[in-house]
Amino acid sequence: MLPTILDIATLADGYRSGRFTPIDVIEAVIERRAAWPDKAAWITELADSELRKAAAALVAAGAARADQPLWGIPFAVKDNIDCAGVETTAACPAFGYQPEADAFVVARLKAAGAILVGKTNLDQFATGLNGTRSPYGAPRSVFDARYISGGSSSGSAVVVGSGQVSFALGTDTAGSGRIPAAFNNLVGVKPSRGLLSSTGMVPACRSLDCITVLAGTAGDADLVRRVAEGYDAADVYSRSMKAKPLPTRGLRFGVLAGAEREFYGDTEVEALYDAAIARLEALGGTAVPIDYAPFRECALLLYGGPWVAERLAAIEDFVGEHADAMDPTVRTIVQGANGKTAVDAFRGDYALEAYRQRTDAEWAKMDVLLLPTAPTTYTVEAMQADPITLNSNLGRYTNFVNLLDCSAIAIPAGFRADGIPGGVTLIGPAFVDSALAALADRLHRAESWGMGRDTDAALPAASALAVPTEGLIPIAVVGAHLSGMPLNGQLTTPRGTFIKSCRTSGDYRLYALPNTTPPKPGLIHAPGFGGKGLEVEIWALTPAAFGEFVNNIPAPLGVGKVTLDDGSVVTGFLCEPYAIEGAREITDLGGWRAYIAELKAQAPALQAG
Amino acid sequence: MLPTILDIATLADGYRSGRFTPIDVIEAVIERRAAWPDKAAWITELADSELRKAAAALVAAGAARADQPLWGIPFAVKDNIDCAGVETTAACPAFGYQPEADAFVVARLKAAGAILVGKTNLDQFATGLNGTRSPYGAPRSVFDARYISGGSSSGSAVVVGSGQVSFALGTDTAGSGRIPAAFNNLVGVKPSRGLLSSTGMVPACRSLDCITVLAGTAGDADLVRRVAEGYDAADVYSRSMKAKPLPTRGLRFGVLAGAEREFYGDTEVEALYDAAIARLEALGGTAVPIDYAPFRECALLLYGGPWVAERLAAIEDFVGEHADAMDPTVRTIVQGANGKTAVDAFRGDYALEAYRQRTDAEWAKMDVLLLPTAPTTYTVEAMQADPITLNSNLGRYTNFVNLLDCSAIAIPAGFRADGIPGGVTLIGPAFVDSALAALADRLHRAESWGMGRDTDAALPAASALAVPTEGLIPIAVVGAHLSGMPLNGQLTTPRGTFIKSCRTSGDYRLYALPNTTPPKPGLIHAPGFGGKGLEVEIWALTPAAFGEFVNNIPAPLGVGKVTLDDGSVVTGFLCEPYAIEGAREITDLGGWRAYIAELKAQAPALQAG
Repeated sequence: MLPTILDIATLADGYRSGRFTPIDVIEAVIERRAAWPDKAAWITELADSELRKAAAALVAAGAARADQPLWGIPFAVKDNIDCAGVETTAACPAFGYQPEADAFVVARLKAAGAILVGKTNLDQFATGLNGTRSPYGAPRSVFDARYISGGSSSGSAVVVGSGQVSFALGTDTAGSGRIPAAFNNLVGVKPSRGLLSSTGMVPACRSLDCITVLAGTAGDADLVRRVAEGYDAADVYSRSMKAKPLPTRGLRFGVLAGAEREFYGDTEVEALYDAAIARLEALGGTAVPIDYAPFRECALLLYGGPWVAERLAAIEDFVGEHADAMDPTVRTIVQGANGKTAVDAFRGDYALEAYRQRTDAEWAKMDVLLLPTAPTTYTVEAMQADPITLNSNLGRYTNFVNLLDCSAIAIPAGFRADGIPGGVTLIGPAFVDSALAALADRLHRAESWGMGRDTDAALPAASALAVPTEGLIPIAVVGAHLSGMPLNGQLTTPRGTFIKSCRTSGDYRLYALPNTTPPKPGLIHAPGFGGKGLEVEIWALTPAAFGEFVNNIPAPLGVGKVTLDDGSVVTGFLCEPYAIEGAREITDLGGWRAYIAELKAQAPALQAG
Repeated sequence: MLPTILDIATLADGYRSGRFTPIDVIEAVIERRAAWPDKAAWITELADSELRKAAAALVAAGAARADQPLWGIPFAVKDNIDCAGVETTAACPAFGYQPEADAFVVARLKAAGAILVGKTNLDQFATGLNGTRSPYGAPRSVFDARYISGGSSSGSAVVVGSGQVSFALGTDTAGSGRIPAAFNNLVGVKPSRGLLSSTGMVPACRSLDCITVLAGTAGDADLVRRVAEGYDAADVYSRSMKAKPLPTRGLRFGVLAGAEREFYGDTEVEALYDAAIARLEALGGTAVPIDYAPFRECALLLYGGPWVAERLAAIEDFVGEHADAMDPTVRTIVQGANGKTAVDAFRGDYALEAYRQRTDAEWAKMDVLLLPTAPTTYTVEAMQADPITLNSNLGRYTNFVNLLDCSAIAIPAGFRADGIPGGVTLIGPAFVDSALAALADRLHRAESWGMGRDTDAALPAASALAVPTEGLIPIAVVGAHLSGMPLNGQLTTPRGTFIKSCRTSGDYRLYALPNTTPPKPGLIHAPGFGGKGLEVEIWALTPAAFGEFVNNIPAPLGVGKVTLDDGSVVTGFLCEPYAIEGAREITDLGGWRAYIAELKAQAPALQAG
């Protein structure tokens, strides 16, 4: 009855339709949690009785309220994020403490109806990308127990990818929320810095840390991100969302080129990357080779520069007293901060700013960057034999993202012949999170390998993401700004979002304005006219781009409100009445396209005449 | 013939009218430089022959070109900014070097026709606010040789305030461009961080340093700032201007309150501050008492926190080898960075971000902040007896500004009975520089004490600043959005800028639209109508605010292009033609105000009836 992967859209649909209840789902969770062979995924499992109590309480209170978009959805939390009454260990037993309060984001998820199932394993103090640096054991890829799960959000990926919970929180400083998604056929959303409060999280690098979401689809992960998001005055790095769009036509995506294409010999993952490039091109994007060197060099600052001192700052007292209780590799990394001076720290800032300038030049060529999530993967055995170098290899395409204030979404990209998955990551500037999720979802659905361990699962249509229009102003265009017409560039150049083609209500008349270059129509509102309506396109622009667009409209045109055939009212083109005197009425043609087509058809005849 | 203070506007006017030439001005500069008794103001004086050669070359090349707004204007440069071929010492002879190139900003000023006169004294390595920390001597206030000039841009203030040059470049990390302006009856512009490239400047705190302008009027200083400004890829902190407006109606300005009013017993400077508050209120501003504590506490990070390590980072090798060649106080401060760790540096970042959040709460109450520039001043003797504490006192109201990414302009605020001047500073968020300059100019001109040592000088009308409209979109409003009308708040709430009242061309007709709430008119373009024109007001909004404003206009109104009585064309309100059927034409009344007045006059009669 229940799907292998407990994706949110399917559960919510089941609840709405009455096919099952949270009580059924929690029983399945309890059963699956007990049955899954990899016990290293969890650090603390909430008792079965607690889970049953939580589900029963939800059901007893009635159906999901409007403010409970995660009603009855089971989730897990990485064990460096506080959940009230459950020990937080950061995968270091000696560090463990009992938090009294939920982390800011956990409280929001619970308030939205989500049911906490347990706390998951991680590379100790979130220091690692591989999942083997924990005294609680090394979680394994859900596809092959010889292989690493990826880290540091290792357990979070495994419990989602094995169908034990619907989604899990991770954290991400160097790639910790993305690498494990790649190795378990999942989506990993790394929000823009500060969107998800870090209050109640054990810091790794406090200025860079992001709480992340691991889920089966981009739609699920985006939903959780929206629920968890919100300004928090208690987190000094908290920021409010100022949503930015991505172009829906003419998307330029950066790709690796030349010597910067490095897969450490894993030609199959390289082929998966190339196939993802081809898919994004098939969706209308244009691949743009960029210089990855400044991104790669910038990333070296994270462990080679002063930022490692943030890891020490987070747990300095503990390290001073209990260094022997730490994972040896993690201890070596954190203690590497000893001896780094404030002068070193500021020089690191200068270097980062210089890389920001160099990478800005690359960003000028692209809207998003498409990279392999990881260049390859390793067995647990190989990783433990060479824990620093192989970990560095894993982070080759992730480490720069938080330093350079980017948002990122890792999505599945297929499988090697041996059944090990590879992933790709879409990376954008800060605050494009919503638009990036819609793009990632489209790419993910272009060719599907299921979700998590269920490689045959269809991605539920209910979680498909529409292009977001939050914060944008829609405008109805009727003439030379239509797609393919001479002034359409005034909408695509400022990265306008195409929403739809539709018609006005019947109360509009259209005229071909004489002496306009390029030729333009005049739309006139005629209440009571009762025609068939006229073809328009709806685009959406940021307020600033919309303002500039409107300011550039020459007389006799302007903008006012236009009523569409569905009765909705949007800003749209209008025409001053004096200009239609003597103009040909073309209302009967149904729109400007038909008129232009007619003109073109006549042109040869005119020339022949 | 030449004025005592060589303000740019007066010189440029003299050049245009032919009353004098740059050769005349340079002769005066040479004479004044030789005659001014305070020899500590200069570190390097360019030879008389060089100055004469430069002036002669300008004159030989013909009159000022359009790209030479500073043609023939003599200026000085603080000796921590490179000028090609002239030694840069940073007031530390052992540190001196011969730069091959002009600093980025110096090159721009020279290219605009300005004539370099020399390099000025400073607190060594720009570390100080008082002007006594230099082996080249302590420059004195141009009003009393017992008193400090203020620092660290000490010499720059003296050579402008004594009429030896028209303007001078300073630098400012903790207040170094503002304090000396206050003590010499000058304007000091501290631009937003990154607007003036720091390439070719000896850093103090590289992440915070700003090159500044000292001049007689806000208009002069703003002109120099605009000429010097520009993105520089060689400066990692360079930023391009994204001009932001300040409200022209309903300005809220923050003021000190309660225990945060600290003048160290200088009741006269306190009275000057209160008088400045009263002047800004008289100009239409509203004084808002704010909590200054988070600003003051944040400022402590500059010397008490890790930022002092930037001072060490800038000259670490030199300090290692030549510490004994440094001013003892400066050496003590810079060496205070020894022992500060990278952990300390990141903790400083966390503290700064926390203060940013707390001060953001205060910024929500105000558009600008009006503070004393310095709470008092001291004699050179007093300062040398207690060099750290008294210097800290001077910076009480300046130290936070760069840390919190603010722009600031110091202006004169009058004199104590003993003839020593006091100043006030207007502080705004980043990128309001142009609007802040216009506001500062208005406040400066509201009551004048001349410029520099010439306390009787009239501030030249030619340098008066109009409210800037760069980056804003103008819109003509005709009805309910006019000042005092019910919807005017839609322009003032988004901090719209009022430009002017004027009339449309004669080809417009106005109708009182029936059934509108509040009552609204419809403006209809009627080519050839030939009426008297209709009253409109021109406001300007940012593109984003303009976009939101337009999107909120309900049918039958909209915006298009309106031709004004001066023939110019701006975006303005229009009306769909169907709406004026049956509407009363009120064109003859000349505008909406007259119609509303008529309605009001009739109202009692209607009620009586």
